[in-house]
Amino acid sequence: MADARAAGALAARTSGTVRIVGAGLLGSSIGHALSRLGVDVALADASPAQLRLAVDYGAGRREADGDDPALIVVAVPPDVTADVIQRELAAYPNAVVTDTASVKLEPLTALRERGVDLAKYIGSHPLAGRERGGAISARADIFIGRPWVVCRDEETASADLAIVEGLALDLGATPVEMSPDEHDRAVALVSHVPQLVASLLAGRFTGAPDEFLGLAGQGVRDTTRIAASAPELWVQILGANAQPVVDVLDALAVDLASVADALRDPDAPGSRRAVADTIRRGNDGVGRLPGKHGQKRRFEQLVVMVDDTAGQLGRLFGELGELDVNVEDLRLEHSPGAQFGLAEISVVPSAVERAVRGLEARGWKIASTTND
Amino acid sequence: MADARAAGALAARTSGTVRIVGAGLLGSSIGHALSRLGVDVALADASPAQLRLAVDYGAGRREADGDDPALIVVAVPPDVTADVIQRELAAYPNAVVTDTASVKLEPLTALRERGVDLAKYIGSHPLAGRERGGAISARADIFIGRPWVVCRDEETASADLAIVEGLALDLGATPVEMSPDEHDRAVALVSHVPQLVASLLAGRFTGAPDEFLGLAGQGVRDTTRIAASAPELWVQILGANAQPVVDVLDALAVDLASVADALRDPDAPGSRRAVADTIRRGNDGVGRLPGKHGQKRRFEQLVVMVDDTAGQLGRLFGELGELDVNVEDLRLEHSPGAQFGLAEISVVPSAVERAVRGLEARGWKIASTTND
Repeated sequence: MADARAAGALAARTSGTVRIVGAGLLGSSIGHALSRLGVDVALADASPAQLRLAVDYGAGRREADGDDPALIVVAVPPDVTADVIQRELAAYPNAVVTDTASVKLEPLTALRERGVDLAKYIGSHPLAGRERGGAISARADIFIGRPWVVCRDEETASADLAIVEGLALDLGATPVEMSPDEHDRAVALVSHVPQLVASLLAGRFTGAPDEFLGLAGQGVRDTTRIAASAPELWVQILGANAQPVVDVLDALAVDLASVADALRDPDAPGSRRAVADTIRRGNDGVGRLPGKHGQKRRFEQLVVMVDDTAGQLGRLFGELGELDVNVEDLRLEHSPGAQFGLAEISVVPSAVERAVRGLEARGWKIASTTND
Repeated sequence: MADARAAGALAARTSGTVRIVGAGLLGSSIGHALSRLGVDVALADASPAQLRLAVDYGAGRREADGDDPALIVVAVPPDVTADVIQRELAAYPNAVVTDTASVKLEPLTALRERGVDLAKYIGSHPLAGRERGGAISARADIFIGRPWVVCRDEETASADLAIVEGLALDLGATPVEMSPDEHDRAVALVSHVPQLVASLLAGRFTGAPDEFLGLAGQGVRDTTRIAASAPELWVQILGANAQPVVDVLDALAVDLASVADALRDPDAPGSRRAVADTIRRGNDGVGRLPGKHGQKRRFEQLVVMVDDTAGQLGRLFGELGELDVNVEDLRLEHSPGAQFGLAEISVVPSAVERAVRGLEARGWKIASTTND
């Protein structure tokens, strides 16, 4: 479907080869998506093993002498991004060069300091990824519906901008124009600091007794899920975006000290208020995050008890289909030791009553219905 | 099924009425579960409206003159827990009194200071809950597979302990004996501080531009999900467990300052190492949290593309049932604007190959398979 929707737009604009340097998760995923669209994808990677994997898995062909790419995508680790961009601009002076690095100001500054002509360079950053990296984890669909930041400047030719934004569109992403500085402050806030906070919180568990951790529930599991991220990449990302990250960390430290001080003397005047304000500000802040379907659309949930046997979910979703109820989202809660789980199903508000009545008539136990 | 598993154990031990004071989420949920087991449940609540709801929804009957409960469960807000325990001990001297408050030392200390005879009181805390409270959100199954902390002491009679632990067992929970102090330090670490951290992080979003928040992905959504919690209850909980919470917050503040200092001078010797150690400690810590199915059991995931039309999930799960593949867990990723979603399905390792082959033979597109 994505294939049909996006077909050919980039191919039409570039009428040629797309060269991808770096066949890891992002590079290979872009390669898969472009290959499906019929674009000639030439892959390069410093690691012969990674390159072989990417080619074997269908992300594109190996680079070849005489390749004349219209677009080059640099998808290498942050610490070598500037070097590779510089090299590619020199080697293919007619190509538009973009990159996928998750920090935008540092490579640009490095390239400017070296006096590199950046007329054909347009930095970009697809906000897509997976918990696991490498060509082997690549997926053509990871960009669909995600923002793809594109950093134009005054020297950017609009035809070149169209090529990079076309790449984003062809892969199902939404191009978002931002300055490198805005981008870096935004990702510090919504990605880099959340990673550090999850890591710091989970780090406090290392010295705790097993019995303490045994009381953990879904809340803390969600809060620390991304603490499982690999250190190597994050050291580079955080190092390359240090100042914006420090700015958010410092503000967070002030907030943390203030609520800790209130709790140091919980009966003092103003202490309850300070704690309540912290929780309330959190309510407001989390309410501003776009949901899976974007900020506006809201669903209602119904929770259905499901036996822990093969086929039960099939029957449930089959019957929802018969009721013409589309499942917008779902979470399966499954307790250790329990012989059944709870399927929390999100549906559009107009479908709630139809779903509940229909399912109950078919013998399902609805544990609850709630608003999002 | 849970009914069959646990049937009658408590009824046998108490051979009488269980009185539940406070018909909110926890009290009503206990009432529902006990009523299903055939136990006579007498409900009391300071709010006539809440009590009416709980009775109407089947959590038990109204309290009556002449009730002679063998067990009393106090399930009221933290700030009135000690008062209600004291009152219940006086009113029903033959009954064992327990409570469900999420802080254990403060009410105990208050009762001791008042010189209350606590021989028949055994504090407890079921680690169960939902994002929404009230009798209307009550569910008999929220205790299944969860820990239920029981705080015995030297004056606790073992017959009385058996009644409280029997309650936990009958509701499908696992009794865990801890001292009040241990309990409070444990929940500070795995529940109260994670709540504050999520709130503080989300609080930083209140002043940010919309475009910044537009770059948010699943990572930050998970990290801040519980920031949506209601302030009223949390102000009480945090106030009642202030010292253990402050201890963890102070340690966290030191860790945070240390990684911020490293990033202030990212090229200094030791800075990369300090950042890497933060991420690595987070890896270790999150690895110690028990998973949904307990720590040991591990699943593999396969990601299947699913059209965004009614009935598609039904077909998928129906066919997984035909293949005799049990779905252990699942997450539906659904991107804004996309016409399909990705169903990430967890299955036992031995079922992965059967699932992938079978689904592909039936025309499903498997986006990837990964290890947990």
